[in-house]
Amino acid sequence: MNTAKKAAQLLSSHNIGALFDSVEAFLFDCDGVIWKGDKLIDGVSQTLELLRSKGKKLVFVTNNSMKSRRQYAKKFSSLGISVTEDEIFSSSFAAAMYLKVNNFPIEKKVYVIGGEGIKEELQLAGYTALGGPEDSEKRVELKSNSMFEHDKSVGAVVIGLDPYVNYYKLQYGTLCIRENPGCLFIATNRDAVGHMTDLQEWPGAGCMVAAVCGSTEREPVVVGKPSTFMMDFLLKKFQVSTSKMCMVGDRLDTDILFGQNAGCKTLLVLSGVTNQSTLEDPSNNIQPDYYTSKVSDFLNLLGP
Amino acid sequence: MNTAKKAAQLLSSHNIGALFDSVEAFLFDCDGVIWKGDKLIDGVSQTLELLRSKGKKLVFVTNNSMKSRRQYAKKFSSLGISVTEDEIFSSSFAAAMYLKVNNFPIEKKVYVIGGEGIKEELQLAGYTALGGPEDSEKRVELKSNSMFEHDKSVGAVVIGLDPYVNYYKLQYGTLCIRENPGCLFIATNRDAVGHMTDLQEWPGAGCMVAAVCGSTEREPVVVGKPSTFMMDFLLKKFQVSTSKMCMVGDRLDTDILFGQNAGCKTLLVLSGVTNQSTLEDPSNNIQPDYYTSKVSDFLNLLGP
Repeated sequence: MNTAKKAAQLLSSHNIGALFDSVEAFLFDCDGVIWKGDKLIDGVSQTLELLRSKGKKLVFVTNNSMKSRRQYAKKFSSLGISVTEDEIFSSSFAAAMYLKVNNFPIEKKVYVIGGEGIKEELQLAGYTALGGPEDSEKRVELKSNSMFEHDKSVGAVVIGLDPYVNYYKLQYGTLCIRENPGCLFIATNRDAVGHMTDLQEWPGAGCMVAAVCGSTEREPVVVGKPSTFMMDFLLKKFQVSTSKMCMVGDRLDTDILFGQNAGCKTLLVLSGVTNQSTLEDPSNNIQPDYYTSKVSDFLNLLGP
Repeated sequence: MNTAKKAAQLLSSHNIGALFDSVEAFLFDCDGVIWKGDKLIDGVSQTLELLRSKGKKLVFVTNNSMKSRRQYAKKFSSLGISVTEDEIFSSSFAAAMYLKVNNFPIEKKVYVIGGEGIKEELQLAGYTALGGPEDSEKRVELKSNSMFEHDKSVGAVVIGLDPYVNYYKLQYGTLCIRENPGCLFIATNRDAVGHMTDLQEWPGAGCMVAAVCGSTEREPVVVGKPSTFMMDFLLKKFQVSTSKMCMVGDRLDTDILFGQNAGCKTLLVLSGVTNQSTLEDPSNNIQPDYYTSKVSDFLNLLGP
C-alpha cells in the first residue's frame, strides 16, 4: 500500500456516525452501486429511503452516457425508486453543458459516437446532433474514386460508450477532428469497462475514446468523472459545500478520484468493478476515506 | 527543426549516386509509396524495373495486415508488377512469426481483430485462428442473465486494421486478454491512418489497437514497423547488411523510424501521408537521410 496515502477505513458501527453526521448530500454512482445492468443491487431501495428520511440530499452522478437525465429518471422509476431529473448528473448532460458554457455556436453541428442519451441532451441544449444510433448500421465503401463525405459544419465530436461502434462512425469522427478547423474532441468519460449486463463487464467509453485518440493522435477534453466539470452544476443546484458531500462509487480512478478532486468525502463500495485486493494492491494509489461491500450496509450500521 | 538531428537532404542528381552505389537492397513500404488503395502511383513500375536491371534487391515491408504474403503477391501481379511472396514482409506474416519464434503452443488458439490476411498467415504457420471477418456481422445481446462466452483456450489476441470492427470483436478480444491467464496481446502495427482508398486517409490499425488498450488497460507487443522484429527474417532471407539497405517509406514514425532503428539508410517519399511541412515542422524529430516527392524520381535522377 502507498505509504504516502492514508489507507481506506472499513465502514463500521464505530465510524459511520462521524461520516453520517458531517454529510448533507450523498453522491452516488449508478452502475455497480445502485444497479448492475438492469438489476437493482440488493437493499438499495431501502437505503435510499432511509437516507431521505434522515434529511440527506441524494444526487446521482453517472459516467454512463447511454441515457439522458430524462431517460435515467424513467429507469429509476421502473426499478421502483423515485428520483427526479435534476437529481441526476449524467456525462451525456455534462457533454451538452460543456458546449453551453464554452459558447459553442448554435449554427455548428455536433457529431456523436455514442448513445441516444447524448443526442437527447445536445438537442435539449439547442444543438444539432448527427451520428449516434442513426449511423449504427452504416457501412463504408472502400472503392477507388469513392469519397467519404463529412459535414464541414461539425464543430465538435462527442464520444461516449457505443455498443454499435463501427468503422463508419470512426472515420466520420476522425475526419471532423482532423479536417474541420478548431473542431472540439469531447469524451463523456474514459472508463475502461462497465457492467453493460449484470453478469459481466464490457468495454466502456474508454474503448471508443481511445480508438479515436489512436486515429487522430489527439487527446479529448473529458467532462465526466474524474473531471470535476459536473460539480459546478451540482453546486449551483444543491448549494452544499463539497466538504459536506460524500461520493459513493465502485471505481477508484473515476468515482473516488472525482470525489477527492472535488474535496468530498469518499466511500468505495465493492459491489462493482473493484474488489478488496485491487484496493489493497501496492500499485493502487487511490485510497477512499471509507470502503464497504455495498450501499445497503448503511441499513445495518445505522441500526433501527 | 530539431538541431540535434541532421536535416533530411532533398534527393538530387548530386547525391543519388552515393546513395545508389552504397545500397544493395531497397526496402519499400507499399501504401502511399507503391500504391494508394488500388491505384499504382505513377512511374512505380518502370522504377522497380530499373532497380532490378541494375542488380538491386527489392523487398516490400508493409504494415498493412489486411492481406497475407500470398494475397500481396497477387495484388502486385494484378497491377502488372512481378513480385514473389518471399520478397514481401507484411505485418500479418510478422504476427504469425512472432508466435512461432516465441514457441506459442500449437494447441492454443488465436483471436483476431483484423482482416483475412492475418488469419491466413496464422493458419499457414499451423495455428487455429478465430474471429476476424467471420465475426464482422455478429451482434451482442445486452440482456440480463445473458453471458457473452469466449474460448478459454485463446492464448493470444492479434489486432490489425479492421474496417469491420464491432463491439462483439472488441468484447471478445478484451475478455481473452483480461481473463485468459497469460494471454498475449499482439498489434500488427499502430499506424494512426492509412490510404484505404486513393482519395483519402482512414483510421488505421492504431485505432483498433488503441480501442483494446482502452478497454484492457494493457499495452501490446508491436510486430510491424517501427519495431525491427521483421528485420531478422529479412536478413535471413537476403543476407545483406542493414547498412547496405535503404528503407523507402511515406511515414516518419513507422517507415523511417524502422529504417533508422535497423541501421538502414532512409528515404522519405512525399506521395503518402507526410508532406514537406510536416517533415520540416519543429515538432518533428524524425529526419530521414533523404527525401523526394515519389519513387519514380529515381528515373529522372539516375538518367538514361
